[in-house]
Amino acid sequence: MVSQEDLAVRTLGPCRIDSPLAARLGERQTTQHSVVEEDRILFDDTISMVGGRGLPIDQLPSLEPGGPRKQIYFDPAKTRVGIVTCGGLCPGLNDVIRGLVLELSRHYGVRRIVGFRNGYRGFIPRYGEDVLDLTPEVVMDIDDEGGTILGTSRGEQDAEEVVDALERLGINILFVIGGDGTIRGAMDVVRVIGERGLKVAVVGIPKTIDNDIPYIDQSFGFQTAMAEATKSIHAASVEARSAPGGIGLVKLMGRHSGFIACYSTLAKDDADYVLIPEVPFALDGERGFLEHLRRRVEDRGHAVVVVAEGAGQEHIQGEEPGRDASGNIRFGDIGRLLRRLVVDHFDAHGTETNVRYFDPSYAIRSVPANPFDSAYCLRLAHAAVHAAMAGRTEVIVARRRRRFVHMPMPLAVSRRNHVDPMGDLWLSVLEATGQPVRFE
Amino acid sequence: MVSQEDLAVRTLGPCRIDSPLAARLGERQTTQHSVVEEDRILFDDTISMVGGRGLPIDQLPSLEPGGPRKQIYFDPAKTRVGIVTCGGLCPGLNDVIRGLVLELSRHYGVRRIVGFRNGYRGFIPRYGEDVLDLTPEVVMDIDDEGGTILGTSRGEQDAEEVVDALERLGINILFVIGGDGTIRGAMDVVRVIGERGLKVAVVGIPKTIDNDIPYIDQSFGFQTAMAEATKSIHAASVEARSAPGGIGLVKLMGRHSGFIACYSTLAKDDADYVLIPEVPFALDGERGFLEHLRRRVEDRGHAVVVVAEGAGQEHIQGEEPGRDASGNIRFGDIGRLLRRLVVDHFDAHGTETNVRYFDPSYAIRSVPANPFDSAYCLRLAHAAVHAAMAGRTEVIVARRRRRFVHMPMPLAVSRRNHVDPMGDLWLSVLEATGQPVRFE
Amino acid sequence: MVSQEDLAVRTLGPCRIDSPLAARLGERQTTQHSVVEEDRILFDDTISMVGGRGLPIDQLPSLEPGGPRKQIYFDPAKTRVGIVTCGGLCPGLNDVIRGLVLELSRHYGVRRIVGFRNGYRGFIPRYGEDVLDLTPEVVMDIDDEGGTILGTSRGEQDAEEVVDALERLGINILFVIGGDGTIRGAMDVVRVIGERGLKVAVVGIPKTIDNDIPYIDQSFGFQTAMAEATKSIHAASVEARSAPGGIGLVKLMGRHSGFIACYSTLAKDDADYVLIPEVPFALDGERGFLEHLRRRVEDRGHAVVVVAEGAGQEHIQGEEPGRDASGNIRFGDIGRLLRRLVVDHFDAHGTETNVRYFDPSYAIRSVPANPFDSAYCLRLAHAAVHAAMAGRTEVIVARRRRRFVHMPMPLAVSRRNHVDPMGDLWLSVLEATGQPVRFE
Amino acid sequence: MVSQEDLAVRTLGPCRIDSPLAARLGERQTTQHSVVEEDRILFDDTISMVGGRGLPIDQLPSLEPGGPRKQIYFDPAKTRVGIVTCGGLCPGLNDVIRGLVLELSRHYGVRRIVGFRNGYRGFIPRYGEDVLDLTPEVVMDIDDEGGTILGTSRGEQDAEEVVDALERLGINILFVIGGDGTIRGAMDVVRVIGERGLKVAVVGIPKTIDNDIPYIDQSFGFQTAMAEATKSIHAASVEARSAPGGIGLVKLMGRHSGFIACYSTLAKDDADYVLIPEVPFALDGERGFLEHLRRRVEDRGHAVVVVAEGAGQEHIQGEEPGRDASGNIRFGDIGRLLRRLVVDHFDAHGTETNVRYFDPSYAIRSVPANPFDSAYCLRLAHAAVHAAMAGRTEVIVARRRRRFVHMPMPLAVSRRNHVDPMGDLWLSVLEATGQPVRFE
Repeated sequence: MVSQEDLAVRTLGPCRIDSPLAARLGERQTTQHSVVEEDRILFDDTISMVGGRGLPIDQLPSLEPGGPRKQIYFDPAKTRVGIVTCGGLCPGLNDVIRGLVLELSRHYGVRRIVGFRNGYRGFIPRYGEDVLDLTPEVVMDIDDEGGTILGTSRGEQDAEEVVDALERLGINILFVIGGDGTIRGAMDVVRVIGERGLKVAVVGIPKTIDNDIPYIDQSFGFQTAMAEATKSIHAASVEARSAPGGIGLVKLMGRHSGFIACYSTLAKDDADYVLIPEVPFALDGERGFLEHLRRRVEDRGHAVVVVAEGAGQEHIQGEEPGRDASGNIRFGDIGRLLRRLVVDHFDAHGTETNVRYFDPSYAIRSVPANPFDSAYCLRLAHAAVHAAMAGRTEVIVARRRRRFVHMPMPLAVSRRNHVDPMGDLWLSVLEATGQPVRFE
Repeated sequence: MVSQEDLAVRTLGPCRIDSPLAARLGERQTTQHSVVEEDRILFDDTISMVGGRGLPIDQLPSLEPGGPRKQIYFDPAKTRVGIVTCGGLCPGLNDVIRGLVLELSRHYGVRRIVGFRNGYRGFIPRYGEDVLDLTPEVVMDIDDEGGTILGTSRGEQDAEEVVDALERLGINILFVIGGDGTIRGAMDVVRVIGERGLKVAVVGIPKTIDNDIPYIDQSFGFQTAMAEATKSIHAASVEARSAPGGIGLVKLMGRHSGFIACYSTLAKDDADYVLIPEVPFALDGERGFLEHLRRRVEDRGHAVVVVAEGAGQEHIQGEEPGRDASGNIRFGDIGRLLRRLVVDHFDAHGTETNVRYFDPSYAIRSVPANPFDSAYCLRLAHAAVHAAMAGRTEVIVARRRRRFVHMPMPLAVSRRNHVDPMGDLWLSVLEATGQPVRFE
Repeated sequence: MVSQEDLAVRTLGPCRIDSPLAARLGERQTTQHSVVEEDRILFDDTISMVGGRGLPIDQLPSLEPGGPRKQIYFDPAKTRVGIVTCGGLCPGLNDVIRGLVLELSRHYGVRRIVGFRNGYRGFIPRYGEDVLDLTPEVVMDIDDEGGTILGTSRGEQDAEEVVDALERLGINILFVIGGDGTIRGAMDVVRVIGERGLKVAVVGIPKTIDNDIPYIDQSFGFQTAMAEATKSIHAASVEARSAPGGIGLVKLMGRHSGFIACYSTLAKDDADYVLIPEVPFALDGERGFLEHLRRRVEDRGHAVVVVAEGAGQEHIQGEEPGRDASGNIRFGDIGRLLRRLVVDHFDAHGTETNVRYFDPSYAIRSVPANPFDSAYCLRLAHAAVHAAMAGRTEVIVARRRRRFVHMPMPLAVSRRNHVDPMGDLWLSVLEATGQPVRFE
Repeated sequence: MVSQEDLAVRTLGPCRIDSPLAARLGERQTTQHSVVEEDRILFDDTISMVGGRGLPIDQLPSLEPGGPRKQIYFDPAKTRVGIVTCGGLCPGLNDVIRGLVLELSRHYGVRRIVGFRNGYRGFIPRYGEDVLDLTPEVVMDIDDEGGTILGTSRGEQDAEEVVDALERLGINILFVIGGDGTIRGAMDVVRVIGERGLKVAVVGIPKTIDNDIPYIDQSFGFQTAMAEATKSIHAASVEARSAPGGIGLVKLMGRHSGFIACYSTLAKDDADYVLIPEVPFALDGERGFLEHLRRRVEDRGHAVVVVAEGAGQEHIQGEEPGRDASGNIRFGDIGRLLRRLVVDHFDAHGTETNVRYFDPSYAIRSVPANPFDSAYCLRLAHAAVHAAMAGRTEVIVARRRRRFVHMPMPLAVSRRNHVDPMGDLWLSVLEATGQPVRFE
């Protein structure tokens, strides 16, 4: 249960500087366009979930809304900003970078913005990465491309060294774009900043192509990724229908959460089976997946199977680990395991099969953001800049139930978002595929 | 202010038939997958908006959630269903039709589903339109195409005649897919049904490419339309940049609400000006639109202007009305008016210009739904079928703050959804274009 | 009949400088990769066309092949190059510019390349256009965008002034990218160059979205344009099928030649009628177009009509000229004329109709080149650079029957390429649409 | 050297039936639209290749043009037609099937057309495949989908059994859509037909996604495949640029011929290296591929490598064979071998690398034809129908230097089409990538 304490946002100090948006938009405008400080957004809106039904509404957990404030904490003329992107690629990274730089420079008048290269490595001298000066000219067209112009890498770096770099460069605001691990890294940075008594705001824009950050609407890039994934599902369907005993097997991203598998299945209603990490499944036996698949192929001549990469990990333990072309052991590749088991099972029963295997993950994550995500990234970036200029720190900006809000970093990493096996998304998947509720 | 009374949903009677989903999913599953009847979803979640802060939460206005019920009102074996699509095209119509038919037939076991052709005309004998039998086979691939296989037309028909047709064909459930006017027509049909003491459920799936149905998240097809619109904006930008004094002028849909203009501008950051119905603008004078545009073209060499079709209607009154190729008077074409006024203004000041005019509306509305909208339409259709089978009537299904809910038809037509000139969407547009807050 | 004289290519002088490709590729490679000087390509390959059947093959008209020469005329270290784009936009302009710059700089080592802005205006001082320095860095990503980074304009400029600019800037090679009129302009420039005794090569890359340059395979950008056009035809089909009496009317580019109309119709087999400039048609009467269309709509409920902008001009003379929204007379808009005549004709016969009119030309011509055209533009640019470095002048590079060749400019403007009403392309269109051979 | 004998086309007998196209198009039209029987198209058009320079043109090898004849061999009212698709998927298969059926039924009035399922298996009773009746209604929209509605399989079947099926079903014309092996199979069928004294025409439409059928312009589907391949190259580039030491490695189709690798590289100029079967390369040593790649990554930080699946097979012999997920030995996977060798080489030199591997082949071959290929397939199908109705047999229809021609099957399988390592295509690739002429 999330409490009001979990939702409290840290700030570096009181906001006493008039926002330059005032001058630009006109005094009257600023007043109107700014967030009303007293507004709060209920964390839950479903009455049975809220618990204590008799509770007055203003005692229920609520969130701080995002958006511009009339007064800000940082003086734009003296502010230096750093931006870093971490972890795997995700559509929209360049849109977020671009939105941050344009909003900071054009609307707040911040002049010095640098990008750190290749994730947290960019702070660490021994990697020898230069910082990249980010101006409106540099970023203007980067949203046409996928990837990130800053480069990225996985893994944390020593928080002390990161803060050393912030001090060395005189950074006042750090924007961190990354997932779960990246946000944990940012929390370490915040801790060191606090220990040193610095006034540096650290604001996160959560990135997860799997949509597994909790409490927020779909993460940026998710719709683009889902749309790309439908192409592989459709190609698998075309292949399956064109060959005797054709089976199209598509492995999609989703280490802990099967959102891409579910949504892309609903979008392109070609899949007969969807397997996700949240719903265990039996492989063997009369009511197991393999036999069900075999009977369907015998009935209809073909089938399409979508499997999230984190699904069925329980089946991998007992198996001989798969090997890649180089002979190296690779644990846990459920896609290749299924391919092998399907072929073996069909062979054992004398059922003809032609399995076509698709693993499109790099092709999905490297595309540019689609128009929805592009607009979404721009608005997220605007919200992040407003939060940072107002001195918020250890906070991510997010959209929850279509409102931009500030969410404390600890809450964002406290759990993962999952497909609810009892919820309407999974029910729609069951209805769309016609697969059994359980393979057991 | 919306009250609990406004949110009360009509039902034809108590639900006493076990849902066939029970048999399909297994008893235990049904229990788990069904909506908890007592759950309610708060209508508002912003505390300052909710008013009386001390009020207990269960006294605040709340909505009935959508989804399957354990018990239903209609016996699937005896149920006949009609579907009709009305008004202008919108991406996703075929997805909704398909979703309704598949859910009804596969999951509830309904056997007789017919489509009425060409909107409400399809009910009226004198138009001589046959009904179309809708089976899973007929609808299986229709989502690959834009438009509607049922055809559509504008305008209401006599509600008595519509109900005559329902009686003649023994229809128990009517699904109506259309906008504002269509929903009003459906309310008339509900009234006549009531007067005749019939037990026919009428459930709407709101369709509006302009996203102007109130109280709901984006309407289906909106993201597809917005994405298509970005292509015209980008083409206008390419044209404008390739010619001396180039101006790309794009008229987009949006009779009352400028959502497509705003979102497509944010997605493809090529526009210098966005004009929407919600924000009046002066044309003439030193701070008017025309002179601002002229100075920008002199500065940068080119500009892109996006105008929603309902913008600036106040400027059309005094003008000689435009004429179409057939010589008929057409009031209110703001796009062509702007084109003429821009050319005149630039000519008068001796500023070179090359205006390229884009009016892509048919090209936008006729495309198939993108993957997001496709999945969304499927889920809307699932929710509509669940609502109708449970005997709900005079209700639309909608997603509000990412939850599927039932909303009474009168509420859905009580006002329009608008871009809030003080809200964060319009603020982001102002920040993205850099245009002044007002032309005055 | 084209004679060998028509095919003779002018050159500035003998090639005595070793191509730097030699050093780069290794001596042995250069030999192999270079064009064999003595090779010639037959102009015609159909025996009945070649005439005099007994003639020895080496007496028949033949073309000089394109490609790199072992020895070249210009010393790369001392060569200055200019590039200009003229006329309407066409997909691939930026690809050609990019290909020229990369090939010149990377492979020949030319260091000074400038772009003239906005067509031939860019040479004329009174327009005040600066030249743009073109380096590999500047052009590297321009192929991702449609349009031309140099800008363009229509119309010739005084050839003496153009050559003044060439002399002022010390230009040795001028690449001209444009259509019929642009090539004529280039021939004037060549004449003045000759009169002044300068050694400046002028090489053209023919650009025509209508594919009406004679004697060559499809012009660059044509396939991209044709593919874009199919989208409008398909949208028209969706609209037509969704409305009672629906007619989708699509005006496509093609002032003198109906290639885009024909190919896009074959590609997306949705059109019922194609009207092109090469095939006159009657409008009225029992066997005229209007009555044929009316009967088809009565039979099938809908129809799609594709009309090239230059079709049916004979019908416009006698008509009241159409008027645009500004009230200005615009002669010759066959699309709007047809729209009016169709409505009138259907009304007169009491046949219901809903005409949807599409005029996608700006949207078509501004898109980036598709992969085929992109590769084609690159290869054309390579061929153009090889030709110019070898001192060829008053020549265009072209692909004829899939071979890159040099073609004298006078031949390229001596006539237009047309759809042959007796040829297999038009026959396939007749077969695909099922329209009558003649409306008479 | 191809002789006139190689180009002679077999025919079943004299054409004495008036083509029904005459009635449809009007007598005058038919005359004009038909092929002039005496016309011939020169096989070669390059003078140095033609050899004996003094030879009269009508003694040089020449081809029979495709197209409709005034008189035909088969009486449409009595003709039964069979269609079969064989081998791997290729964009455009459904377009060809559709074009054959529409032309046969609409324009010649043939009423009975059947499709054999799953390649040559469809003729063999023991597989139990029913034939599929092919009517205009069945095929009307199949071109919207990739794959083949007939299904396909690899491998020949016994020609005697195939001809048994033809006799059993009374087939007069068999259209065979497939590659090299399929055409050889068709030649066996022709032989048996001859031995039995039957009058059955066998006409092929050559299918090869690798573009390796000799003597013809690009095979159908090639441009679509090439365009799809560019997406993987670009994704590889985005991945490579976003990671430290990033290498994008893309394996493309091309068992014997590197056309897809070459054209897609030219189209999307992101690749630094292209490796094709026609150009051997050394891996090791100072001037070998691995070290060259390593130095480039050190210089620029990233690289993209495109490798055709048939490239570098000489390096696979000595290697430990790769294994697939099922543990079966799979020889010859150059992509995975390169991935391993690159990692090993970089590790040995202490150069950081992140290799992203792309193997998009199923995703490429299953897409629908693009507009160019769609129109091309339609025209090929028209030409095939004209050839068959005129009694041509053991012939393929093809486009050579942009003319539709008849080519004897034995010639079509006499060799493969290759990228010429001395030709302008490969030279443009070398210029575009900047890679060395040889790794040695």
